[in-house]
Amino acid sequence: MSKPSLPQGTRDFSANVVRKRNYIFNTIRTVFELYGFQPLETPAMENMETLMGKYGEEGDKLIFKILNNGLGDGETIEKAQAKASKSRTEFEKVLEGKNTKDITERALRYDLTIPFARYVAMNHGQLTFPFKRYQIQPVWRADRPQRGRYREFYQCDADIVGSKTLLNEAELTNIYAQVFNKLGIPVEIRINSRKILAALAELCGGSDKMIDITIAIDKLDKIGLDKVKEELANRGLNAEQVSIIEQYLSINGNNTEKINQLQQLAKDNATAAAGLAEISFVLNYQPEGTAEVCIDFTLARGLNYYTGIIFEIKAKGANMGSIGGGGRYDDLTGLFGVPNLPGVGISFGVDRIYDVMEELKLFPDEVQSGTQVLFFNLGDAECARAFTLAQQLRANGISCEIFHEQMKFDKQFKYAEKKDIRNIVIIGSKELEEGTCTVKNLQSGEQKTIAQTELPSQAF
Amino acid sequence: MSKPSLPQGTRDFSANVVRKRNYIFNTIRTVFELYGFQPLETPAMENMETLMGKYGEEGDKLIFKILNNGLGDGETIEKAQAKASKSRTEFEKVLEGKNTKDITERALRYDLTIPFARYVAMNHGQLTFPFKRYQIQPVWRADRPQRGRYREFYQCDADIVGSKTLLNEAELTNIYAQVFNKLGIPVEIRINSRKILAALAELCGGSDKMIDITIAIDKLDKIGLDKVKEELANRGLNAEQVSIIEQYLSINGNNTEKINQLQQLAKDNATAAAGLAEISFVLNYQPEGTAEVCIDFTLARGLNYYTGIIFEIKAKGANMGSIGGGGRYDDLTGLFGVPNLPGVGISFGVDRIYDVMEELKLFPDEVQSGTQVLFFNLGDAECARAFTLAQQLRANGISCEIFHEQMKFDKQFKYAEKKDIRNIVIIGSKELEEGTCTVKNLQSGEQKTIAQTELPSQAF
Repeated sequence: MSKPSLPQGTRDFSANVVRKRNYIFNTIRTVFELYGFQPLETPAMENMETLMGKYGEEGDKLIFKILNNGLGDGETIEKAQAKASKSRTEFEKVLEGKNTKDITERALRYDLTIPFARYVAMNHGQLTFPFKRYQIQPVWRADRPQRGRYREFYQCDADIVGSKTLLNEAELTNIYAQVFNKLGIPVEIRINSRKILAALAELCGGSDKMIDITIAIDKLDKIGLDKVKEELANRGLNAEQVSIIEQYLSINGNNTEKINQLQQLAKDNATAAAGLAEISFVLNYQPEGTAEVCIDFTLARGLNYYTGIIFEIKAKGANMGSIGGGGRYDDLTGLFGVPNLPGVGISFGVDRIYDVMEELKLFPDEVQSGTQVLFFNLGDAECARAFTLAQQLRANGISCEIFHEQMKFDKQFKYAEKKDIRNIVIIGSKELEEGTCTVKNLQSGEQKTIAQTELPSQAF
Repeated sequence: MSKPSLPQGTRDFSANVVRKRNYIFNTIRTVFELYGFQPLETPAMENMETLMGKYGEEGDKLIFKILNNGLGDGETIEKAQAKASKSRTEFEKVLEGKNTKDITERALRYDLTIPFARYVAMNHGQLTFPFKRYQIQPVWRADRPQRGRYREFYQCDADIVGSKTLLNEAELTNIYAQVFNKLGIPVEIRINSRKILAALAELCGGSDKMIDITIAIDKLDKIGLDKVKEELANRGLNAEQVSIIEQYLSINGNNTEKINQLQQLAKDNATAAAGLAEISFVLNYQPEGTAEVCIDFTLARGLNYYTGIIFEIKAKGANMGSIGGGGRYDDLTGLFGVPNLPGVGISFGVDRIYDVMEELKLFPDEVQSGTQVLFFNLGDAECARAFTLAQQLRANGISCEIFHEQMKFDKQFKYAEKKDIRNIVIIGSKELEEGTCTVKNLQSGEQKTIAQTELPSQAF
């Protein structure tokens, strides 16, 4: 028998990690709901044709496909597996004459957007628009695992479809602010509009340059200005065009200063004016709290389907890439036969948020506590009494355990210590007789003997 | 482009279903934690060797296997897929000479017990025993889909390993009672001990008959006494033996009466006495509330690994099979090289619990409510004011939406109605000027105009 192991790029989450992750999920969920977003859950597996061709050639390769069970007429992959060890030919025979559809028809979801689009397309007759949904579920990608990159990870999305108003962008900005406020993470909410990038392409002489420019600018953080200029040149932009882009990228200052500089650079360009109007609208709905909304004209977001405002979240004071992002798109469900559904959505990067909160020590103490009270087990009758009292505490919402066996004091103390249980209740023969119990707080060391009837009203 | 669809046997859960399911999950989770169980999450996929051979031959066939991505030397299933439409031979060439391991090395988890065992075996050096974990996650089975049977469904398990005391069984009985009490489902908690069944086999002349007897008795509910007797005869039990089993199965009355009858039938049998001692211990820790703990000597539970107390839950007044079950086992992790870890666990059948709660109309009203307040959108300045007020309500935990566009009253009313939003707040030009707002409860029809400053203190 081999030593058991986990598939590469996957993780077990033990209790204290689950609790911290749930704290993040619950915070996000609560804020989504305060803004009227409703939960949706879709299955882990989708039909192959729902997923394939939606994420580009690279994406298609990273989709986990599921083997059909029962490979046709009585022959199954299981039989083949059983025989394969005996004879390779047997296995080949099973696969012989099969085409892809015989092998795999289903796959694990790669993100939450395509399943959402599939859901909206399938149910659009029944839905009330604008449709506001949030979805918090795992996705799977056959990426090469590396530090911070997993093959199974959660996505946390909120989208509004069927509405064009910028009020949505304003509300999503406020959702970001409110979530990170509650989590205690100081953030910059960086915004731009793809219309500004389109305007830049126009300034460079042609909107056909838009994709080249976007791809190059998107790398600014990683490769620096010189390399971006090089890449632009390689992509066929001339010195004058590169110079305009350089001027664009050097825009700086506060939001007002940036807007003024862009207006200087792009005067009389209608597309730029439209983009600036979008940004100004959103800036008019400034969130309360510590989150800062900053214009970042260098923000591009790789995905080509964005058409308006785009978002990206940067944690201040933590060495970490973006911990959230999103933007407006024109057409969610066209690929599934339901055209003209514009939308806007945001996403939270939970694994990175988790790491930032660990780095900045932001998880509240109470998130990390499991069992609150351990009753010592000191005899049959004593244990039965402990059980009755534990039930009373549980009815009051206090989590309790009764030590499982009658063992020596130090073993029972050790268990409390290892499991970080902060309060113990001792009922020995004397306490049983007197109707009392001894309560000890293991953190403060404080100890007192009280009537058993007083126990349920104690604070733990 | 084809009409999108869902894979057979899988489901989308829309908002009101998610909310009701979460109500069940949260109730179970809360009670698990009150008893000191800690959460664990394991990945959706496990290595093939972790799963295969653990669920019997039938089970192995129902495991969803995941195709390896990148089928060896530069050849990938994706390329094959691309080519397959052109030429079947191309695809065959890719698969040629491959054995099973080249095709699939990972699979989706089939239950939560084996991943738990794998986790304990991998981490047993670090864990504190007794180890109490709960796990609420989906599992996947390639069963033929039918009414009430899905290919993706949640399991909800709590187990204690590393402890032999019956106190665990007593606590698990109380967990069942407390959960169903909270959910409002009247239940019978049926218990038996596999030792009683072992004693029955001894009474029939040999413990080698145990499996035959268990399998036949397990079908009593479905096929009736006559067919059970027939099956026993077919399995080689003689008339005398069948008669003993018939006497056993006819034991009835309340718990005390049943115990007396069994003692009559099995007098001097030490195994029966041991089983009865287990049952009596558990009965001594009667739960409070409406749940009834009943001895059911006909309860067998199909799985062979149970060795002591076994449980099964029946909802009273609902036409539904068991909505929970579990029992004690001797050896969780032996298969993974860590022997001698006994344990006991229970499971909740969430899909069936959901159906029972729907049938008996047990979901509380508040579970089903989404957005609480809709602000009408009646102009730019009015909308901006509405936004400010909405933010104040959200800060108080009230979920709000602002209607997305300036539209006619009746459209905005209709949206509130369709989304079952029960309160609307109207700020028109007059209200804007006067600093007031009109609040209407759409259920009662009650309407009042108040100062905007009073809005945050309203009850919704």
